[in-house]
Formats: sequence, C-alpha cells, structure tokens
Amino acid sequence: MKKQFSLSGFPDFNAIQVNRREYVLSLMKEKFSLFGFSQISTALMEKRDNLVGSYGDDGDKLIFQVLRSGDYLSRIQTDVKGLTSHELSSIISDKSMRYDLTLPFARFVSENQSFINLPFKRYEIGPVFRADRPQKGRLRQFIQCDADIIGTKSLWLEIDLINLIYAIFDALGLKNMVIRISNRKLLEGIFESFSNALDFSRFCTIIDKLDKLDFKKIQQLLLDCGLSQNEILLLENLFVFKGSFMQKKSHILSCFAINENLKIGLEELQFIFDNLPPDQNIDLDLSLARGLDYYTGSVFEALSLNSNNGGSVLGGGRYDQLTEKFNTKHLSGVGISFGLERLCLLLDELDLFPKDWNNGLDVLFINFGLKEAQIAQAYIYKLRKLGISSELYPDDIKMNKQLNYANKRGVKFVIMIGEDEIKTNKLSVKNMFNGNQKSLTLEEFINLL
Amino acid sequence: MKKQFSLSGFPDFNAIQVNRREYVLSLMKEKFSLFGFSQISTALMEKRDNLVGSYGDDGDKLIFQVLRSGDYLSRIQTDVKGLTSHELSSIISDKSMRYDLTLPFARFVSENQSFINLPFKRYEIGPVFRADRPQKGRLRQFIQCDADIIGTKSLWLEIDLINLIYAIFDALGLKNMVIRISNRKLLEGIFESFSNALDFSRFCTIIDKLDKLDFKKIQQLLLDCGLSQNEILLLENLFVFKGSFMQKKSHILSCFAINENLKIGLEELQFIFDNLPPDQNIDLDLSLARGLDYYTGSVFEALSLNSNNGGSVLGGGRYDQLTEKFNTKHLSGVGISFGLERLCLLLDELDLFPKDWNNGLDVLFINFGLKEAQIAQAYIYKLRKLGISSELYPDDIKMNKQLNYANKRGVKFVIMIGEDEIKTNKLSVKNMFNGNQKSLTLEEFINLL
Repeated sequence: MKKQFSLSGFPDFNAIQVNRREYVLSLMKEKFSLFGFSQISTALMEKRDNLVGSYGDDGDKLIFQVLRSGDYLSRIQTDVKGLTSHELSSIISDKSMRYDLTLPFARFVSENQSFINLPFKRYEIGPVFRADRPQKGRLRQFIQCDADIIGTKSLWLEIDLINLIYAIFDALGLKNMVIRISNRKLLEGIFESFSNALDFSRFCTIIDKLDKLDFKKIQQLLLDCGLSQNEILLLENLFVFKGSFMQKKSHILSCFAINENLKIGLEELQFIFDNLPPDQNIDLDLSLARGLDYYTGSVFEALSLNSNNGGSVLGGGRYDQLTEKFNTKHLSGVGISFGLERLCLLLDELDLFPKDWNNGLDVLFINFGLKEAQIAQAYIYKLRKLGISSELYPDDIKMNKQLNYANKRGVKFVIMIGEDEIKTNKLSVKNMFNGNQKSLTLEEFINLL
Repeated sequence: MKKQFSLSGFPDFNAIQVNRREYVLSLMKEKFSLFGFSQISTALMEKRDNLVGSYGDDGDKLIFQVLRSGDYLSRIQTDVKGLTSHELSSIISDKSMRYDLTLPFARFVSENQSFINLPFKRYEIGPVFRADRPQKGRLRQFIQCDADIIGTKSLWLEIDLINLIYAIFDALGLKNMVIRISNRKLLEGIFESFSNALDFSRFCTIIDKLDKLDFKKIQQLLLDCGLSQNEILLLENLFVFKGSFMQKKSHILSCFAINENLKIGLEELQFIFDNLPPDQNIDLDLSLARGLDYYTGSVFEALSLNSNNGGSVLGGGRYDQLTEKFNTKHLSGVGISFGLERLCLLLDELDLFPKDWNNGLDVLFINFGLKEAQIAQAYIYKLRKLGISSELYPDDIKMNKQLNYANKRGVKFVIMIGEDEIKTNKLSVKNMFNGNQKSLTLEEFINLL
C-alpha cells in the first residue's frame, strides 16, 4: 500500500479547486461589504483557557491542543506519572487551534474596545479546526465565513443577516434554500415548563443530535435525563408540527404553560417574522437547538432542499455573554457562519460553478536552446508588460514534448522562435485551440490577442 | 495590570490592516499569474514526521507540535515517567503546524504526481508557524507568499523568479531594492577546500547567523567546529569583498582550490548573471547561506536599502531532494517566499500604502422607531440591489448618538426618514464630508451617487 503522507481531514486544494473557492469567496465578500461589514483577521491559535469550556462537553473534546515549546517538562513541577490525558494536557499544552471564528471575535472586541465603534460589524474568513471524525462534508480543518454584529440587542440585525444570507444564495445561483430559525429563550421556556433536574445546556446538546440520531435514541437520552414520557411526547409533537409561524405559535401556547423565557422567545420570533420580506423561505423549527453553548437567543441554520447530502451550509445565532469570558460585559452579538467546503460541495452537486475557467497562461515559448531562449525571454518581458501571461519552457527538450506540455496545461498560444524567425524578426504562433499556425510580427500577435 | 487574552506572536488584524494586506496580496497574485503560476492551497497541519528533521537542528526546535486527540495516554504502552520532553512529544504528538509552504508543496507534488503536468508552477499564500521569540517583524504566525517551480533544473527559472520579484517590487512602488544571491554548491566547494571534520549543514547554520551575531562570535563558532584561523580569515575576506560578479569570481578562484562543487556553483551563477536584464540590482553575497537545510543550489534574499529595519522581505532557493522525503526522486525545484508582514512593515515605513482607503459604507439610515425603520429597510433593499452599501442603525437611540456613530465610522451619507419624509416620499440626505443636507427623492439620491 502506498504510504499516505497527508493527514486525514486536512485537505489540500489544487488550482481548479482553489479557483472555485475564490469564486465563492469573492461573491461573498462583495455581499458582506454591501451590507456594511468590514473584514478583520484574528490569530489561528488561542490561549488554551480561552477555548476550553466554551463549546460544551462535546465541543471541548474536539479542540486541537498545541504543546508548549522547548523543554517544557523541565519547567513543570508536577510529576506526570499517573495523570490522565486531560490532566497532562492542561499542564503541557497552553495553546489551542481556534475552534470557530466567534470566540476569537469576542476576544478581539474585548481587547480592542477603545478603538472600536459600537455596534461593530465585521466579517472574517479563515480556517478553524475540530478534531472530529473526518467524513464527506466534515473536515478537521475547514474554512468558516462569518459575519457578526456586536454591541446591540436589536432584532433588526437578525433580519438583516437573513437578508444577507439570501443575497449570497442569489449571487451563487442557489434556489430552493430554506433558513430554519429557532430561539434559545423559547426552548429554555419550554424546558422550564418540564418537571426535571436536567441542565439546559445538556438538553440543547441532545436536541442538537436530532438530525444525526433517530428519535428513539433521543427519547432514551431525554428519559435518562429525567424527562417524563408525557413531556417527551409533547416535544415530539412540537418537532413534527407543520404550519406557518402563527400556527406554530398557537400550538406552543396551547401545549406549554407560559413563562418569561417562553414569552420573550416568542416575541423575538414574532418581530423577525413580521419584518422579513415576504419572498424568503424561513421556517420556525424547534428541533433546531445548535450545539454551541454560547447561544442565548435566535439560532439559525440554512440548507438546500435540492441536495441529497443534507445540504446544511450555514449556522448562526445570538450570544449575549460571549465577551464576559474576556472581562467585557453587556455586549450582545449575533452572527452567521457559512461553511465554505459545504457550500462548494453543494454548488458542485447542483452544477452551479461557472464553466469558463482556464488556467490563465496565454503564451508558452518553445525552448530551442540558449540563443533562441534569450530572444524568447526578451519577447516575454514585452508581453508581460502588456499584462499577457507568458513563459519560456525551461528546458530545450524535443519540441513534441514541449507541445504536449502546453496542450495538457491548456496554454492558448505556443510561440516558436528558430533561426528563420530570428532572421525575419517574426514569431511562429500556434493557436492551441484550433491548431492554426501563423507567422506574425510581435505587433500583429498583440493585435490578435 | 490588564489581563492579556491573546497569544504573543499571534497577531490579529483590524479592518484597515486587512485592507492593506489585501492590497499587497492582490498585486502579488496578479504578478504570480502573469508569470504563469496557478494557486494551490495545502493543509495547515502536517504529520509530525514530515516536518521534524527537515529544517536543521535550529529549525526543529521551532516546530509547533499538536497533541493527539482524545484519551491519548490510554493508547500508549510506554511509561511516560522519566522521558525527556522530546521523547514525550514524539509519543503524544503526531501532528505539527506547517513551518513553511515549501515542504507541504513537495508533499503535494509527490501525492498528486499522476495529475500534475511537470514542470509544475504553483503559488500559495498562507500562514506558517514558528515557535520563535516574537519581536518586531518576527511573529509566530505569519503569512508566506510562495512561488515555486518543480520538475526541472533549468536555471532559466532562477532568472524568471528574479524577474518576478522585481515585477512585484515595481507594482508596490518599492525602489532601491537589492537581491542577494549565493549558491550552496559554491559554498560547499569552498567548505570542502577546508581541512575540517565539520558538517556542511552546521556550517550553513553558522554562516546564516552572520546578520544576527557579530563576526567575533561567528569566528568562535567556526573555531569550535575545527576551522583554522587562516581559513576563517579567508572566509571573512570573502564576505567583505566588494565588486561585480566577475571580480568576486576572480577573487574566489584566487583564494580557493578548485573542486567540482566550486566549479559548478560558479557556472550556475555565471549563467544567471549572464542572462539577467541589465537594470536589476543583484549582488553575489557569499555570506548568504539560508538556514533551511533543504537548499542545494541557488539561494536568494531580497531587501530594501531604504529601510532602517533590516528590510529583508524575501528568501528562496533551489532544492534537489525535498520530494525524496515523500518517496519521489529526481524532482528539482526552486522557489521564492515573500513575508507578507515584512513587506507590510516596509511599505508602511516607506509610506507606500495607498491613502484613499475608506471603510466602504455608503449610507446609514437613522433609526427613528419601528414604523420609520420599516420604511428605511425597504429603501435599503433597493439601494443594495444597485450595489450601494447601506444599513439601518439598529436601535432608535438619540439622533446625535447615531450621527456620531456615522461620523466615526466614516459613512458617506446619512439618511433620515421621519414623519415629513414619509408624507412627501422624500429622503433627508446629509453628506457627512461637507455637512450639507438636502431633501431628495430616491431617484435623485441615486443620481447624486
């Protein structure tokens, strides 16, 4: 078996793939900027303490931890013998790879408060790392594209983010997309109406597994946590209930006793549904909880109804306390996060990538030896000055091999300069798409282009 | 003291800084592509074994190592007690952050040989990681911008890379730059003429410290390694010798006995100097060795003579055996690597960044309450459809505060829609640069823009 040198879940991308990714990113950046977000860039590593404990128990296990540098053991007093992996890690690792872009954003805002004009809108595009089991659409290193606003609780932001999501879908040609929305306060209100000792974060973690596990297993998890059969039945009915927002709202009010969280959650959703443009496909979905611990209000997800691969390409939500970890209080934020790889998978599945990409090399000069190459090189300088990409084949190997290379590389024109061409000051130009060959002066060739 | 939450050496970049970086990168990408390079993207983590041992002893110490995931100790047979840090790391870490882009490139080429058309030209731009002591211009996470060609020994590539470097300097407005060039074969030839038992890699590591340590210390290091006082004097004379390439060549031939490496090294340099355009500032500098272990031929560095901070912004060189680590033989490659942060420091020092950047928000609508906000939101949809970036201030706080926010953010126009404007179907438009305020219809405002 051939040895694999690359790490599973850590992808490389070839030129065609990079080109497709850049296509998506450039459209996305254009829309982020149209909606008033400016780009920042945060560090790829964080202090270990910044991350551990922020993503729930399940999330914590997926954080990549980086070893201290140098002879770290010599600087440790503790005897490492008998420690658990977790205990050892907390001593010999002080840095972690970032797990998302939201927490680094909260740190950035807290550390740069004096320079920041609140409410602060930023976007960031970059890799994040999760030690998940790699599978199709789930990598260990992947690109998130986040837009967040921090510094106000206004629900206009939720509305504007939903508009932004649809603007990006439109630009990419994605139709039949749906945004699922829920609200953590509403979920918490429902949860509070149950007679149980379960903690809400654990409840959300279980609900979040709904699209991965079948309902029988979810039932068992909820039973184990102390919910009654009757309560689980109420939940199940809630999850499968179909209808408009108003119908779902009535259903909730008929099934659960009203409390403060439930009331506020419903009011927040009402405002959002009242103020959305009518042409958008938004669905209240109470089975959506989002696994991340830090959400406190709206939570979103967006997916394609045309995809056979699940098709979820975006998550997001509102967080009220995320900056408190960094000693900054009362900064509510809300944001969305596109998964670039998921989006690319979807665009590929639906055949929505532009077809007209080429590798961009306009001209290859055949190498016939030192003297000819020197003359070719002089032409190349001139062409490049005009913005025409061109290069010399580096070795004077057989012409056939050089032409073959040009062909495989998708070069547009091959130029040959031999003794005749040197005498007549002309170029033999071969059009690689139709095979035509002509003798041209440099000016004639430039005009041809 | 305020607690620092960010890791030293791992920088964040605000919107203005990101904009400057994007300016440099877009010019650089344009030139890479003009010279026939296409972009790829490799993983940020590598198997630990891929990296360790590739960068010399000094480099190895600077590699960031990533802990295995989960309960790694339970899967280890060895007793961790009594291990050195190095031994423990080799057991509990299996991944490392990449140290440069060259080695991942060699891996990529080896793993994708069947899809690659050799000679293969690629560029890659992305972060690399080194556990160095952070200081001005030296970070632990920094962006390299690499262009490499692999699959031929042709020296035309060295020449083309030098042209590419100057094309990028020109595009950035950088004048008075110099490229220092040397050749590892020539250095090895000189080294072989000495009567010593030192290993060549160690010799290069010492020479590489020339611009960091004073010559007395270098002398001592070379003495400790077995060079004689006389040999060290020859070296020192070589390093300080001024003159053209031909003068330096004569000096070398007069000082050192000829051997195969010395002869080939000089021939390679001769070819490069013979075929460069005359207007470029290239200097043979034998004190340039480059610390990286994998170089086997030409080595480059580029720096600014106008800078007070050293001003080195680029390194590079030729490597003949780098893919052998990945079971692929006989692929010689050569490449250059710009340091983005170094380039930005230099452009900032020389005041070469464009001045006309703005944050890009064209219009902010003042929020006067629900009804007005709903109407504003409808206008915002229309403006954005036309590519005009606009947003609603999210909260209906005092107008002064909203105007103050618009001002700080550098918004171009503020639009107010109150009861009067709703009745007359007009907008009150305030130009934030000159303070003028006008009552306009939407069409009139769009024409104004």
